[in-house]
Amino acid sequence: MTGEPLRVELGERSYPIHIGAGLLSEPALFAPHLRGGRAVIVTNEVVGPLYAATLERTLAAAGAKSFTLAIPDGEAHKDWKSLDGIFQGLLAGGADRGTVLVALGGGVVGDVAGFAAATYQRGVPFIQVPTTLLAQVDSSVGGKTAINHALGKNMVGAFHQPLAVVTDTATLATLPPRELSAGLAEVVKHAFIADAGFLEWMEGNAKRLVARDAGALAYAIRRSCEIKAAVVAADERETGVRALLNFGHTFGHAIEAAMGYGRWLHGEAVGAGMVIAARLSAAQGRIPAADADRVKRLVGALGLPEAPPAIALEDWMTHMTRDKKNEGGRVTLILLDALGKAAVSRDTPRAAIEAVLRAP
Amino acid sequence: MTGEPLRVELGERSYPIHIGAGLLSEPALFAPHLRGGRAVIVTNEVVGPLYAATLERTLAAAGAKSFTLAIPDGEAHKDWKSLDGIFQGLLAGGADRGTVLVALGGGVVGDVAGFAAATYQRGVPFIQVPTTLLAQVDSSVGGKTAINHALGKNMVGAFHQPLAVVTDTATLATLPPRELSAGLAEVVKHAFIADAGFLEWMEGNAKRLVARDAGALAYAIRRSCEIKAAVVAADERETGVRALLNFGHTFGHAIEAAMGYGRWLHGEAVGAGMVIAARLSAAQGRIPAADADRVKRLVGALGLPEAPPAIALEDWMTHMTRDKKNEGGRVTLILLDALGKAAVSRDTPRAAIEAVLRAP
Repeated sequence: MTGEPLRVELGERSYPIHIGAGLLSEPALFAPHLRGGRAVIVTNEVVGPLYAATLERTLAAAGAKSFTLAIPDGEAHKDWKSLDGIFQGLLAGGADRGTVLVALGGGVVGDVAGFAAATYQRGVPFIQVPTTLLAQVDSSVGGKTAINHALGKNMVGAFHQPLAVVTDTATLATLPPRELSAGLAEVVKHAFIADAGFLEWMEGNAKRLVARDAGALAYAIRRSCEIKAAVVAADERETGVRALLNFGHTFGHAIEAAMGYGRWLHGEAVGAGMVIAARLSAAQGRIPAADADRVKRLVGALGLPEAPPAIALEDWMTHMTRDKKNEGGRVTLILLDALGKAAVSRDTPRAAIEAVLRAP
Repeated sequence: MTGEPLRVELGERSYPIHIGAGLLSEPALFAPHLRGGRAVIVTNEVVGPLYAATLERTLAAAGAKSFTLAIPDGEAHKDWKSLDGIFQGLLAGGADRGTVLVALGGGVVGDVAGFAAATYQRGVPFIQVPTTLLAQVDSSVGGKTAINHALGKNMVGAFHQPLAVVTDTATLATLPPRELSAGLAEVVKHAFIADAGFLEWMEGNAKRLVARDAGALAYAIRRSCEIKAAVVAADERETGVRALLNFGHTFGHAIEAAMGYGRWLHGEAVGAGMVIAARLSAAQGRIPAADADRVKRLVGALGLPEAPPAIALEDWMTHMTRDKKNEGGRVTLILLDALGKAAVSRDTPRAAIEAVLRAP
């Protein structure tokens, strides 16, 4: 059952986030968004067999006929080929502008299905049903959709807000441990950038979180979504404060790109990226070195890598200068001014960045 | 030189349409939109050699560094491959979120470049510089962007409004005659659906238009853009009145799909499609048979096909039921209630449609 939903406040594009155990079987959460009576579930080959049949029954009880399309599992399939497979399935199944797409899966499914919804027939509505912790605390909220390009991650995409997010925390039971930790990376990121109290709570509850204590996870998901929803409401299209959500991501994206997408999970790369960003913040005199150590310890306690893989300096710089947040050739970074307080830096000297990367 | 620009009124997404001879060489029309100082011209292999160098000089005079990317010419290349070629070029050239794309060419270039702008790094600004009559009177105005899918035309796309439309009527001098007539199809469509007086003017000036009389073309372009801008302002995302702009298009899209994209020009297919739609309107008792004949004569006088190619009835119906405007399996058609007045029909009996298609 669900309590009062959170809301992402975006004017006429506002939507609820429902969080609770067993919500996949709650037709009442879906019915208000299925007036046209037609839906297509987009999932992957791992999640589909676990939950698609349940969701189809729930959608039927909510008054919608549906069928299911599955893409291959993994970040390596967050590409045009998967997207085109969805378009093929939608066209073959007669999906029209009134058909609602339902993204059932992790961040890759949400991003690809969301981008399909943003562009199929110039845009159809969609609902996010995230089944990984990463997707529940981060990627399902905020309307960012994308696929990767051989030359860069998330380089092709759109802003397209869902009608609703339905987070069934029971799906976390089947999540592999690495993916649980990868999700915790985004949870702790929200703490690092915006909430010192939540950060302390995370330090005190890291073991419970890694052990999947249901109460701890439910609290972490809700607090994460609250922080993200507030940031997104203030800056839907990332022209300002939303950039803070990219803490650890410029380094993380470079790790993912340098290693080949899919080798390191996104959250793992972000974990190591946050440690580097904290060390750079300390090197720049923004935070004490002891605080950077605290970041590193907490990242490690959540089961995440505390250090990046071996990457040549020139590869780091190539991948980082290609980041979407850059403009005019400068590297934009998110640094910490305190634990719980992040800031955008557009003028970090390249020598300082390189020094941290030489001795990570 | 340009007079007072038209404006498409869409709140914070409003933009000017400049129409006149020689505007490609007017830096002042571009400068207000190039504050970031970086632009990429997207054109095709036919138009690029004619005008790209001029436009690059104009952009430089307006304060922007630019380079040019060219896709192959023709509707057959309005596809993912061309789009991906643009993404490759943008990434290789270091284009970022502040880079402005400039679409220089006809409807295909505008649609593909516009969709690239809608989705590159989740959206960058763009300017339309249409060089065909079709693009000047229709596709450059209103923010529809798309690529084709093997299973349907314009099936993947986005609404993404340009910062400005700069229409240089001097570019029409190099336009092949078939493409001139194809553009006139959309001009006369605007008259058929919305303006009986303009329709009479078209009848009186068909010969001058086909002969490229500069004054007649300038008037036709301006009046077409006025009608389209008013419709778009009233219904940006095609939830209502904007559907009227699809007069002739359901039949036209079926012709293009059945013949293979590129065999019939879009405007040629729309020309024949409007004749069919007018005949169906007459068969349904909406307009006198004499008015349907008037539609047919004017379409012919503009150098367009008055009748469709031979297409099997089941192929017609397959392609028409796949049209984006349909919902719930019904065929949505735009019919005439009078010359100069169109209406959406969602309940035309299939037998009536088939009767008109059997004897086109």
